[in-house]
Amino acid sequence: MQGLWLEDRRLRVRDDLPMPSGEAVVRVLMAGICNTDIELTRGYYPFAGVPGHEFVGEWNGRRVVGEINASCGNCEACRNARRTHCEHRTVLGIKARNGAFAEYLMLPEENLHEVPAGVSNEEAVFVEPLAAALEIQQQISITPDDRVVVIGDGKLGQLIARTLALTGCQLFVVGKHERKLRMLDGIRTATAVSGVFDIAVECSGSAEGFATARAALRPRGTLVMKSTYAGDLTFNASSVVVDEITMIGSRCGPFAPALQLLADRRVQVRDLIDEVFELRNGVAAFAAAQRSGALKMLVRTG
Amino acid sequence: MQGLWLEDRRLRVRDDLPMPSGEAVVRVLMAGICNTDIELTRGYYPFAGVPGHEFVGEWNGRRVVGEINASCGNCEACRNARRTHCEHRTVLGIKARNGAFAEYLMLPEENLHEVPAGVSNEEAVFVEPLAAALEIQQQISITPDDRVVVIGDGKLGQLIARTLALTGCQLFVVGKHERKLRMLDGIRTATAVSGVFDIAVECSGSAEGFATARAALRPRGTLVMKSTYAGDLTFNASSVVVDEITMIGSRCGPFAPALQLLADRRVQVRDLIDEVFELRNGVAAFAAAQRSGALKMLVRTG
Repeated sequence: MQGLWLEDRRLRVRDDLPMPSGEAVVRVLMAGICNTDIELTRGYYPFAGVPGHEFVGEWNGRRVVGEINASCGNCEACRNARRTHCEHRTVLGIKARNGAFAEYLMLPEENLHEVPAGVSNEEAVFVEPLAAALEIQQQISITPDDRVVVIGDGKLGQLIARTLALTGCQLFVVGKHERKLRMLDGIRTATAVSGVFDIAVECSGSAEGFATARAALRPRGTLVMKSTYAGDLTFNASSVVVDEITMIGSRCGPFAPALQLLADRRVQVRDLIDEVFELRNGVAAFAAAQRSGALKMLVRTG
Repeated sequence: MQGLWLEDRRLRVRDDLPMPSGEAVVRVLMAGICNTDIELTRGYYPFAGVPGHEFVGEWNGRRVVGEINASCGNCEACRNARRTHCEHRTVLGIKARNGAFAEYLMLPEENLHEVPAGVSNEEAVFVEPLAAALEIQQQISITPDDRVVVIGDGKLGQLIARTLALTGCQLFVVGKHERKLRMLDGIRTATAVSGVFDIAVECSGSAEGFATARAALRPRGTLVMKSTYAGDLTFNASSVVVDEITMIGSRCGPFAPALQLLADRRVQVRDLIDEVFELRNGVAAFAAAQRSGALKMLVRTG
């Protein structure tokens, strides 16, 4: 079968990939490029194989999306309801498991969720990052009393802002791209903020964004960290202690409510699509995704 | 009056200090040297004045201890029950307010707590750091199901371990000093731990201790940061995101339960006292507090 192959930070199209077998084999219809995929091509994590973890596909005659962590079910994390943190997990297109930029992928059947009829393929491909955005609300309580700032107006920042807006919180988004900020219909935007926020969400994927998020917080505020990227962060430990700041890492989230938000048309995602590429042009899709100001690039595989 | 004076990182005894006036003027009986005091002499924070924030004294014929943050009562933090984070606060011996290594200090009357008759001066001087140890339990829930590791066997680590032990949690202390680890009666100690802990408390005051605490945590674990010291910390941001780690800074805590623990004899502190110095020998007390393996040095002022 055809697919994108990443090895030694080099991405290419291959036509000789073996068909997956052993679990639920999903015919991929469409897959999205995430910043984590781009970071993988830069060596963020030593993955060799087919990248891609945002997808919609077909399995047993049904349209499905899939949770990306395949867990063992037996380790301590699994036994304690933390399956996304399974010690022996493989992760679609990220860790020891080929991903979605291919004609077929496989996942455990239990990872699949059927896509409701009213949700298009172009929308369903956003379920994984939308679930990641919703993870924030699984971790911390956000109410209309909370002043919340999202640092980053990119793909993930847009989804985070759009889901946080539903909580009724007092929301600001800090970004650098006028076009992207304009897409945040009804949400206040800024290019800088002061330290009055209860919650800051860092999804810019940069050390500068982290510093902005930290500076935006009031004492006892919470900094949610959403970006995965190579490299270390440096911060002033004493100021975090003195201000009793909470920093919390946030990764994969719940698929069911994400699908429901799309089905109910409570979150719009289609305007985030910049361009749709054919699988054979996947390398160009990755290049396009790295252009300054780019939003979501999709790869059509079906 | 006599007192220790810190200026340009230089500590000396002065006999010409003006008597404080304007708030409750407390005759200091005894004061303790904290690592924060030592960090101040190293330039952690640009404080000039009388250092010292752990004390027991006499006011209006009563023995008192005192909360160290003097707050305005009007700012947003004060109005939202975060008075220790008052935007305009002064802090005893740390920020814009002379401290306890002097014959007299002053604090707002509301900051003072009477010491019960059964609690000696040598014990009462530990109320402030004991309250800081208890702050952890104000911030996060700790139950007998939790595996907790304290990184650091020093003055603060001892108090933190002794208060955490009262929760019935599965407690380990990691330290480098055999003598100090032996003082943790009934608490398991180790020189290294693996990544199975639900909660890690960093109170070693070093970047190495932070790294040890981080490595000790299971995914979705919580790292409590208790040490204030000069310099930045570097950490791998992506691993914090992927493992959904929570890091939380922790500073001053509640005095009333700390006094109660001492009155009820539920926490022992006297064995932590290494030596008692007279105020005129305060510079020597600071030197002694910086000796490797030192525990609490007290300064008798009354």
